[in-house]
Amino acid sequence: MSEINIFKIGGNVIDNPSQLKEFLSSLARIDGWKILVHGGGKEASHLCEKLGHPPKMLNGRRITDRDTLEIVTMVYAGLINKRIVAQLQSIGVDSIGLSGADGNAVKAKMRPSVPVDYGFVGDIDPGEINLNFISLLLEKGFLPVFSPIMHDKAGNLLNCNADSVATALAVSFAGKKHRVNLIYCFEKDGVLADINNKNSLIPSITPSSYQSLKKEGKINAGMLPKLENAFNAVSRGVASVWIKNSQNILTNIGTKISL
Amino acid sequence: MSEINIFKIGGNVIDNPSQLKEFLSSLARIDGWKILVHGGGKEASHLCEKLGHPPKMLNGRRITDRDTLEIVTMVYAGLINKRIVAQLQSIGVDSIGLSGADGNAVKAKMRPSVPVDYGFVGDIDPGEINLNFISLLLEKGFLPVFSPIMHDKAGNLLNCNADSVATALAVSFAGKKHRVNLIYCFEKDGVLADINNKNSLIPSITPSSYQSLKKEGKINAGMLPKLENAFNAVSRGVASVWIKNSQNILTNIGTKISL
Repeated sequence: MSEINIFKIGGNVIDNPSQLKEFLSSLARIDGWKILVHGGGKEASHLCEKLGHPPKMLNGRRITDRDTLEIVTMVYAGLINKRIVAQLQSIGVDSIGLSGADGNAVKAKMRPSVPVDYGFVGDIDPGEINLNFISLLLEKGFLPVFSPIMHDKAGNLLNCNADSVATALAVSFAGKKHRVNLIYCFEKDGVLADINNKNSLIPSITPSSYQSLKKEGKINAGMLPKLENAFNAVSRGVASVWIKNSQNILTNIGTKISL
Repeated sequence: MSEINIFKIGGNVIDNPSQLKEFLSSLARIDGWKILVHGGGKEASHLCEKLGHPPKMLNGRRITDRDTLEIVTMVYAGLINKRIVAQLQSIGVDSIGLSGADGNAVKAKMRPSVPVDYGFVGDIDPGEINLNFISLLLEKGFLPVFSPIMHDKAGNLLNCNADSVATALAVSFAGKKHRVNLIYCFEKDGVLADINNKNSLIPSITPSSYQSLKKEGKINAGMLPKLENAFNAVSRGVASVWIKNSQNILTNIGTKISL
């Protein structure tokens, strides 16, 4: 069984060309099996605005009607995905951009419309990940680059959360006895005890320290879903989960989440 | 060596959901190795208009400035490509959508800016097609679905002509002794002697009959680039080239181009 590093980058990295370039160069220097999952960033919302279709968000998630689904498919699976793959190819990393439909890599289920109708938004069961296909690509030396656009195998595309895609991939590979490291990358050094103080990095969080930190109000609300995803991953066999600055992936600087 | 059927579909099929669905069902019924190349259709021009960036065409080719490149990447490599792949998956065809950057499948060269500056438009040398990668996918049972967005291996995406992409793929596989059939699909039954009479199908064209037909003014101007591509392909070893209605791919109805 192999070691796999699964990286997730979000909007703040994607929206900043020099940060993205630096992240991709660092990624190129990491040996072994790796997968990249990218989110969307501001470009989708920007395109929604330009097309007179203002984005609607609820609890940090995008409400995805049919027009919005077309926009995120264009921006995530088209523009951002191919831009990243072309950049990786230019620095010698043989990458291949994927939606969940490609090679039937990841099947998602449309989220129930009750209590909230998010529209064409999907959730992923790690059991519905096509490990044979993704492993084939890894074995042949490719770096799979996933946009968060998945499909339901009935002809519909679904907009998924990129953190959740990365988590589901990690859990799925861990279930096959691979040693999986999951690294959520963003623009801060990790989880900060004081969001206004970049020197307040919390180097390690365990379930019990998490409860104390929450009680003390030291965890920023925006971090909660990421940490829930992280604990979900470690409790399901993922060897390590990190929250890191996208510029620090070659270092040990970051917040390590463990049991 | 294997037999490969390479299909190209253009805008009129892509823009019509029921025709596209019918074409994809027919495609699913064809055995053996196959590749699909799709063009763009009206959606890219429509999006250009909506974004206040009217499309500019010259000699039937799109002038592709940086904004237009982003638009065609979104529409061709994102929306149309993933829509086709998701539909194929829903009918049991394990397809994988590709730009030229994915797996470094197809490298293109930016067209010289003299005599006409088309912007980010690329041309493909069949020698720059990564047959190892595409053959791997075919051998593993996948149907590769190409959008006409290629890359230059230096980090830039380039907008290519879908007919030319299909032709270059066909010539490249023929050069490796595969038996290649190239089928350009569109909304008419083939080359018509009288464009207003759908019963005037010309079932077969050879280089000498082509010269006579041209002299007699029987070839519609819009057909000339497609026929030039077709003769280019057969002269370089492609076993058969057809111009067919997308609804007729399971039949022998069409125009066959041969030496």
